Amino acid sequence: MNIKQLAGTIFQQQSFLCVGLDTDPDKLPVGFKNTPEDIIRFNKGMIDATLKHAVAYKINTAFYEAMGIKGWQIMEETLAYIPHTHFSIADAKRGDIGNTAAQYAKTFFETYPFDAVTVAPYMGKDSIQPFLDYKDKTTIVLGLTSNKGSEDFERLQLSGGGQLYEQVLTTVSSWGSPDNLMFVVGATQSADLQSIRKIVPEHFLLVPGVGAQGGTVQEVAAAGWAPNCGLLVNVSRGVIYASRESNFQEAAGLAAQAYQQQMAAAFK
Amino acid sequence: MNIKQLAGTIFQQQSFLCVGLDTDPDKLPVGFKNTPEDIIRFNKGMIDATLKHAVAYKINTAFYEAMGIKGWQIMEETLAYIPHTHFSIADAKRGDIGNTAAQYAKTFFETYPFDAVTVAPYMGKDSIQPFLDYKDKTTIVLGLTSNKGSEDFERLQLSGGGQLYEQVLTTVSSWGSPDNLMFVVGATQSADLQSIRKIVPEHFLLVPGVGAQGGTVQEVAAAGWAPNCGLLVNVSRGVIYASRESNFQEAAGLAAQAYQQQMAAAFK
Repeated sequence: MNIKQLAGTIFQQQSFLCVGLDTDPDKLPVGFKNTPEDIIRFNKGMIDATLKHAVAYKINTAFYEAMGIKGWQIMEETLAYIPHTHFSIADAKRGDIGNTAAQYAKTFFETYPFDAVTVAPYMGKDSIQPFLDYKDKTTIVLGLTSNKGSEDFERLQLSGGGQLYEQVLTTVSSWGSPDNLMFVVGATQSADLQSIRKIVPEHFLLVPGVGAQGGTVQEVAAAGWAPNCGLLVNVSRGVIYASRESNFQEAAGLAAQAYQQQMAAAFK
Repeated sequence: MNIKQLAGTIFQQQSFLCVGLDTDPDKLPVGFKNTPEDIIRFNKGMIDATLKHAVAYKINTAFYEAMGIKGWQIMEETLAYIPHTHFSIADAKRGDIGNTAAQYAKTFFETYPFDAVTVAPYMGKDSIQPFLDYKDKTTIVLGLTSNKGSEDFERLQLSGGGQLYEQVLTTVSSWGSPDNLMFVVGATQSADLQSIRKIVPEHFLLVPGVGAQGGTVQEVAAAGWAPNCGLLVNVSRGVIYASRESNFQEAAGLAAQAYQQQMAAAFK
């Protein structure tokens, strides 16, 4: 699925919810063990429970890598379970020189056939271009993140004017089109979303930080809406850990539904 | 092995050579197939051939990830083959918010017990701190890289003075000590090494870009030398692809030896 198809789904479902599968083996519901079988069962349960309300799933690769080979097996099986009606994102935040970036692009677009992958901008164009070379895939570049550490470098003032993250948006948006390039913009900084929209009026923004990290759907929609919606709001902990009791699946579905209903208001 | 132990080895061996195992299945010597067995055989052959001349090995995770699960198996077996007399680096360039960064630190310090891992600075302190929390491991943060894309953001001028990468060196060096923190500094920019040494006079620098990317050992040693040597020069293609004929192992050994001999001059 590419960005245009995603936009179609978003308007059809009246939802721009992405569910983050940051599955921590230590936070599984009661009765689940830290085994590949149980983690896969949990992930499939989360997908089943949220499919009607979400348009995308984001797999945070770190949580799977930390388990070693069995983690990659779980990731592969989880990815295969996401239906092609939904957009799949590898949240991998890779970034390296050209020949290495090409290997990472191969990893997340071919070996594991995700629709999209997150990429870090620090090393510049040749670290991002190999991802953009996949025309029907989506490259999601870090702009302004939702963590406290975003103050350290992303918000540094440049002598030419603006902050570093604004320059990243300006420069990187000239390398790809709104059809194959998105940006990560943290919702805890939603006061900045309006000025970000002036820099990238048409690009989709992947917005983490709603829920556990603060930030609301209403604020994000009010400040970040674009003609094609242009928003994909990710919620991880607020959905997949809605309950750790036997009703965990129902609770996740209700949490996703609540987000979707908040989102539907933005389409009116 | 920690940084102090590495420094001891460097003076004993009169070498600061790190061999980069960026093993590309398409570039194996004649007679090798693109199978896990042959890639492991090649990596072991490279380690055997260079052990006397090198003090460290750097595994570029991208080349292994791109193969999927079998790639991680190859990486695991290669890591296990690196003797504890040598420093092992996962060149992974990870960077994410705190709880995710903790998972990446676990991946490369526990699941795969490397001595060191490379980390990207864009997202700031909470993306780096979980790595630094491992006191006897080494965190290697990107400073100035050796690729053309380093012009795009790393070299941006800040309104407070200096370039972004200089601010990264200044800020990040306050988070860790020279005993558990290194920086990546590209050798193709060796004219900058002297000014970098003023910012981080004691930290070890991991210097890629010698060989295939330009830059010489002599220039790096002249500009970057610190009291504890403070240099780890990485060569990947210049050693492991020295020959693709049946003499590939001998050729790699000779290439590594030639680098070591250039390095020995710096200890006089």
